[in-house]
Amino acid sequence: MRHVLSVVVENKPGVLARIASLFSRRGFNIDSLAVGATEKPEFSRITLVVTGEDLVIEQITKQLYKLIDTYKVTDLTAVKHIEREMLLVKVSINPNTRSEAIEIVDIFRGKIIDVAEKNMTVEITGDYDKNEGFLSLLKKFGIIEIVRTGTVAIQRGTGN
Amino acid sequence: MRHVLSVVVENKPGVLARIASLFSRRGFNIDSLAVGATEKPEFSRITLVVTGEDLVIEQITKQLYKLIDTYKVTDLTAVKHIEREMLLVKVSINPNTRSEAIEIVDIFRGKIIDVAEKNMTVEITGDYDKNEGFLSLLKKFGIIEIVRTGTVAIQRGTGN
Repeated sequence: MRHVLSVVVENKPGVLARIASLFSRRGFNIDSLAVGATEKPEFSRITLVVTGEDLVIEQITKQLYKLIDTYKVTDLTAVKHIEREMLLVKVSINPNTRSEAIEIVDIFRGKIIDVAEKNMTVEITGDYDKNEGFLSLLKKFGIIEIVRTGTVAIQRGTGN
Repeated sequence: MRHVLSVVVENKPGVLARIASLFSRRGFNIDSLAVGATEKPEFSRITLVVTGEDLVIEQITKQLYKLIDTYKVTDLTAVKHIEREMLLVKVSINPNTRSEAIEIVDIFRGKIIDVAEKNMTVEITGDYDKNEGFLSLLKKFGIIEIVRTGTVAIQRGTGN
């Protein structure tokens, strides 16, 4: 099963290496990973997407807690949550295809963030599947480059 | 100096651990890191933000190339590029503060992606500084949680 783990860790050198090797030692490939600042400067949040047996993921979660730099691990897959990924894509355009390409960007509520003579760069946010759908429609124009942040996720607000 | 490195690597277990330890062995803290899919399924792209002496970053770049799984390293700081980060923030609201909070979200072109009785969750994209500015305005409402993707970047389109 696919799991989205949110791991809050101390913000210092070596922590990411230790966490990444915890997964690779077990032969787990990390589908995506994003490390960013949190509301507290001494902590970073690592959002990981991994696919694997539930039991093994549970074991890894326990091992993550044993790392001295881990503050909190949440398996967001177990709770109501929202997933988002940002995608930057540079796509070929020419005077004949430009308006169709812009139309697709508008439908997906993308933002054109750069335009050159023969290409344009679009920013879009959404879950992984929406972004994949967007890319599949752009394919025919010619995709030059894709940059993705990897998935991040947040628990849906309850009564807090 | 702050550097934004874009590293294209083979998409397999262990690669991220090796790259992360390359930085930590030298005591470098990675400010942010994002791993996502690329236009080719066999490769992943890692976007790293690190602060350090130009010469040392250059040495690390050379060492990255020595890793067998590294396909390409680009220091985007050296070329015209666009940086973007996505931020999800859950903020406290009550009937008295709701409309002011929504106004700020609109000004920053954020998207409200979840609303509960006492909080709302907002998605925003921009460079790190814009996102920091947004957060500083939300502080007075009470920030419950912040999830950031880390910076990703793409070279501005030239004549390609």
